[in-house]
Amino acid sequence: MAEPRISLITLGSRNLAKSRRFYVDGFGWEPVFENEEIIFYQLNGVILATFADAALKEDMVAGELYRPGAFAIAHNVREEGEVEALMTDLAAAGGRILRRADAPPIGGLRGYVADPDEHAWEIAYNPGFAIDNDGNILFGT
Amino acid sequence: MAEPRISLITLGSRNLAKSRRFYVDGFGWEPVFENEEIIFYQLNGVILATFADAALKEDMVAGELYRPGAFAIAHNVREEGEVEALMTDLAAAGGRILRRADAPPIGGLRGYVADPDEHAWEIAYNPGFAIDNDGNILFGT
Repeated sequence: MAEPRISLITLGSRNLAKSRRFYVDGFGWEPVFENEEIIFYQLNGVILATFADAALKEDMVAGELYRPGAFAIAHNVREEGEVEALMTDLAAAGGRILRRADAPPIGGLRGYVADPDEHAWEIAYNPGFAIDNDGNILFGT
Repeated sequence: MAEPRISLITLGSRNLAKSRRFYVDGFGWEPVFENEEIIFYQLNGVILATFADAALKEDMVAGELYRPGAFAIAHNVREEGEVEALMTDLAAAGGRILRRADAPPIGGLRGYVADPDEHAWEIAYNPGFAIDNDGNILFGT
């Protein structure tokens, strides 16, 4: 059995400078490493990488990669009021609003913003999921 | 500035039973919640969700979602020998090998396996990235 773990999420990018603006100016995250091909951001025990499309395809030995892909990454916030504020910042940094913030069936508040490479981020306030001091989420606590 | 955090990764699924087999029998991860539409797995401070495609599209208000998407999720292991062993388990549980394990330019060992919904997992041993006791990864340490 493998330990239950994700180590990195790597997002293909068509234009790393535009992507960088979204993550640095929109989320306010600082790269821990960057060159012309890849940028790394240290998150809560997980590294986010944005990687030039051609290099990602070569590394994966993928035929063709498509967008938007059938996935979303969620960033949960601690206070309900942070959802719309962050979505506004992300849109101002080159993101595209997919769904304005509203209440999902389980309660709370969430909206979706696509990054400049069409990768979907859900920005959510979910009172049913605890966020600890390190920013980690625990299911149903 | 938003805290540097990913809370959930949600992967669209065309067949949750096949997907479940890959994560439960392949990785050996136990769901913390499941119904006909969604399955949650608690990982290192991040939750992995597999969500029926139609429900994900409705939640995101997405037009069309495509696969394979331009992204990969990495699961790093602690010992080099674990890479091929885990890839074998994943292939036996319905995964498809995209790239057999070999050494990337930075050293170590990595391969890629697609889950039954064509989402790419990189299985990697990277001696340059430390994995702490909680399974978290720290860049360049």
